Amino acid sequence: MREGGGKANVQRPIVRKYTTENTPTAVIVTAIGCYYLGSLRPTALPDSSTTTLHEAQKPRHQTSATNLQAAWADFVEIVGKENVSTDKIDLEEHSGSDWSSYTAKPNEKPFLVVFPSTTEEVSRIMKICHDRRIPVTPYSGGTSLEGHFSPTRGGVCVDFRRMGEILALHERDLDVVVQPAVGWEDLNEELAKHGLFFPPDPGPGAQIGGMVGTGCSGTNAYRYGTMREWVLSLTVVLADGTVIKTRQRPRKSSAGYDLTKLFIGSEGTLGLVTEATLKVTPKPKSESVAVAAFPSIHAAAECVSKVVGEGVQVAGVEILDDVQMKCINDAKATRRTWKEAPTIFFKFTGTPAGIKEQIKIVQKIAKDTKGQSFEFAQGEDENRELWSARKEALWSVLAMRRNDSDRVWTTDVAVPISKLPDIIEATKEDITNNGLLAGICGHVGDGNFHTILLFNDSERVVAEEVVHRMVKRAVEMEGTVTGEHGVGLIKRDYLPHELGDSTVDTMRKIKQALDPLSLLNCDKVVRMESPKAGEVKKW
Amino acid sequence: MREGGGKANVQRPIVRKYTTENTPTAVIVTAIGCYYLGSLRPTALPDSSTTTLHEAQKPRHQTSATNLQAAWADFVEIVGKENVSTDKIDLEEHSGSDWSSYTAKPNEKPFLVVFPSTTEEVSRIMKICHDRRIPVTPYSGGTSLEGHFSPTRGGVCVDFRRMGEILALHERDLDVVVQPAVGWEDLNEELAKHGLFFPPDPGPGAQIGGMVGTGCSGTNAYRYGTMREWVLSLTVVLADGTVIKTRQRPRKSSAGYDLTKLFIGSEGTLGLVTEATLKVTPKPKSESVAVAAFPSIHAAAECVSKVVGEGVQVAGVEILDDVQMKCINDAKATRRTWKEAPTIFFKFTGTPAGIKEQIKIVQKIAKDTKGQSFEFAQGEDENRELWSARKEALWSVLAMRRNDSDRVWTTDVAVPISKLPDIIEATKEDITNNGLLAGICGHVGDGNFHTILLFNDSERVVAEEVVHRMVKRAVEMEGTVTGEHGVGLIKRDYLPHELGDSTVDTMRKIKQALDPLSLLNCDKVVRMESPKAGEVKKW
Repeated sequence: MREGGGKANVQRPIVRKYTTENTPTAVIVTAIGCYYLGSLRPTALPDSSTTTLHEAQKPRHQTSATNLQAAWADFVEIVGKENVSTDKIDLEEHSGSDWSSYTAKPNEKPFLVVFPSTTEEVSRIMKICHDRRIPVTPYSGGTSLEGHFSPTRGGVCVDFRRMGEILALHERDLDVVVQPAVGWEDLNEELAKHGLFFPPDPGPGAQIGGMVGTGCSGTNAYRYGTMREWVLSLTVVLADGTVIKTRQRPRKSSAGYDLTKLFIGSEGTLGLVTEATLKVTPKPKSESVAVAAFPSIHAAAECVSKVVGEGVQVAGVEILDDVQMKCINDAKATRRTWKEAPTIFFKFTGTPAGIKEQIKIVQKIAKDTKGQSFEFAQGEDENRELWSARKEALWSVLAMRRNDSDRVWTTDVAVPISKLPDIIEATKEDITNNGLLAGICGHVGDGNFHTILLFNDSERVVAEEVVHRMVKRAVEMEGTVTGEHGVGLIKRDYLPHELGDSTVDTMRKIKQALDPLSLLNCDKVVRMESPKAGEVKKW
Repeated sequence: MREGGGKANVQRPIVRKYTTENTPTAVIVTAIGCYYLGSLRPTALPDSSTTTLHEAQKPRHQTSATNLQAAWADFVEIVGKENVSTDKIDLEEHSGSDWSSYTAKPNEKPFLVVFPSTTEEVSRIMKICHDRRIPVTPYSGGTSLEGHFSPTRGGVCVDFRRMGEILALHERDLDVVVQPAVGWEDLNEELAKHGLFFPPDPGPGAQIGGMVGTGCSGTNAYRYGTMREWVLSLTVVLADGTVIKTRQRPRKSSAGYDLTKLFIGSEGTLGLVTEATLKVTPKPKSESVAVAAFPSIHAAAECVSKVVGEGVQVAGVEILDDVQMKCINDAKATRRTWKEAPTIFFKFTGTPAGIKEQIKIVQKIAKDTKGQSFEFAQGEDENRELWSARKEALWSVLAMRRNDSDRVWTTDVAVPISKLPDIIEATKEDITNNGLLAGICGHVGDGNFHTILLFNDSERVVAEEVVHRMVKRAVEMEGTVTGEHGVGLIKRDYLPHELGDSTVDTMRKIKQALDPLSLLNCDKVVRMESPKAGEVKKW
């Protein structure tokens, strides 16, 4: 293949830029091009479609005390003194959480937390941070797990707690307009009054802003899809303070690039979401739950595969492993005692006769695939009771803590559906061999599962290695390093292994285009500067 | 609010670039920045998150005969002489189509059509076009409607017809890996052998490459979602020839930016799709169709709204207006004669008892909402017969052509569901008042409808105005200028009205980042240079 050379190349000036940091720019001009000289870090070649880590523009933040104090005064002008906090506890709370797998370094704290109340205020705050080159970390529910809101570069935390309103419910259009600090549980409580619901169901306490950020999902994803399928439109404040609305309110559109979906899952690195228009759907009139225990994960998965193959449109299908079921029993998390075996939880919705028929089909399949028990609910109370075990998974592992120094590491991966039993079995074996306790629960219809791993400081390295191998296993099975939690800081460096360098370089190109100063949620999703020696785990 | 000024601004060199075309670059360096002088068109400010039309880098193509002939020789080296065509008929066929609403100008023809057979060949072709600055238009099924594959800048057409293989079917994972020239109908024929199907059902003849490009959908979208919901991963050749794979094969992932969805609906302007991994789903075991006629569009829509509100999970719900039904009768397009009234076509899937129950509920609601008739199918033959009218909509209007000079203009818009009856009624009235004939069929559950408009040369201006007002009406009702066809050339200039300038400027920033030389499917989706006087219709 011919590369370069030829007539066209002669005509095109070759421009290769080198930029300096905080020093005047020197430029050499030649007949065919122009060089910026300074540090030897080149910026992205202007004609290429990707930005390698080597080419990336390093962040050039200004986080001197003088600059941050001046920003504080600017913010006070915009939102009032009472809505800008430098309180120590506030700063701590906005640095990390007990349930995050990332341990914040001592300097990873915001200088201040600002609480805006409108899109316009967020835009004005962002313009100031842009002018002053101050990094910004967005914060809503604070329930993310992989270090998503760790302010690795200090700067400003924008907490959306004053933007927690449901702005409009369009019942006949089946959509609702909300602010970023609306929790999905509160939203559903309100929607229920109108016979409606919003399916994405991540961890308790999660709010719309963060749910957009992580592209979350939950037990309803098998039937209803993830956050990506339930957002119609976003209002976003970009890195330079520009406000955009990604779409209007129709349920379908083919007009232009799908910016809505670009922001979903971007973990606050491309813009700050200040409003979302969400699809909602009528709450099913009838619902039922069935629970079946199996002799092995493989048998349980075989059952689900056959149910799906039969075209039974179950509304949810979850798996809990034997250890997880034991935790629920030991913690006395539910009223009943369960068989300590791999257990499938089915949810059915539809019309009453339709549900009855589905249950009958599933019951037969469970029996054919070595199911050891099959129970289905009669009425709402029994629905709740049967589903309660699934709901108590996390809390029951938390209850197993041996003492106060024990922590819980919740993480997830996803693989093609048929590979789920293999990866669960291998991960279970690895956990047992390393003397750790972990419950496993999986969205089995999506090939996605969580480990809820108990560990203390002395077990941290072992736990890290177990998680590392689980992630590696998922990638090697053509899966993903995270099905619904996002990469945050902890899984960022796995992305090139999952997707290849050029795909990550394309993401970096987009990041640099929309946030040229690397202000937004620094260091998440893609690196903008090379890791220090030893910082990245060997693959 | 303070803008600019302050300490941070002093430290930051202000860089404002002006570029010239085909002339050496002149640069002035000052202590605080650097100016490129030349034409007075500034390029995007490097720190901003958007690119205005004024700031955009104008395309600088090299389409001299010498350069194109040299490219021809390069391509022959890659794919062989037999797979590079300069045949006049080939060039004509790749310039437009009878069913496109865009009329190609005489010079809008490719210089050659190249037929690659692998991703690697496409990458090598793209690298040559990048080096030589030759614009590239991708082509698969050629069924798009809004001028999507018109080679407005000449250059090279990449036709994927040699890449039409189903590469792998993973039955247990419910996914299939295909090349871009696989047609959705052929794919479904193959999948049916395995009890599976792929829901997106756009116009007949459409192929995966173009379906990704337009983010298409069809009658199955109400139940199953659009193309966006059915693509797991794409292999894409970027503008500079870089090959990326957007994801692996898990059904769910939260790992990194959703590049898959960025390419879906990008109309070939961001990259060339050379492979796609698609979700598939078990073919429903039972299916049934019901048809109900109503006294008005509003009554029909009221029925659908109640059915949806009842939580009945219909698999499809389509509306045809009275004119459309009359066309079907007049064209004798189906075996039976239909009531010439607004008619709803329901599709039900599920278990047999579930379907029966759904039909009963819908029948009652139809009666309560002034339904004038309700028929449901018993058995597959009757299913086919009842659905046949929906299937024949386009052909029946085509059959109404008065003579050879009559053409058909098919276009679509979408609005929030509750506004669909109003916009259909207003559009019908406008069509009638202007003496035109048009059938209307709508994906009523999605708020999306099509007009199939008959016109001849003398009626062109009137037809254009009718479509313009329909689009404007949709935007004013918080809708979109296209629900499933894409904007192509015809609706591109409506985007700023629908989305606002800053949203389109964000799209332009992304276009410029990934395709800095504006090589890919020029002039579609976003403009990279200002329109000529009179080129854009007054809003």
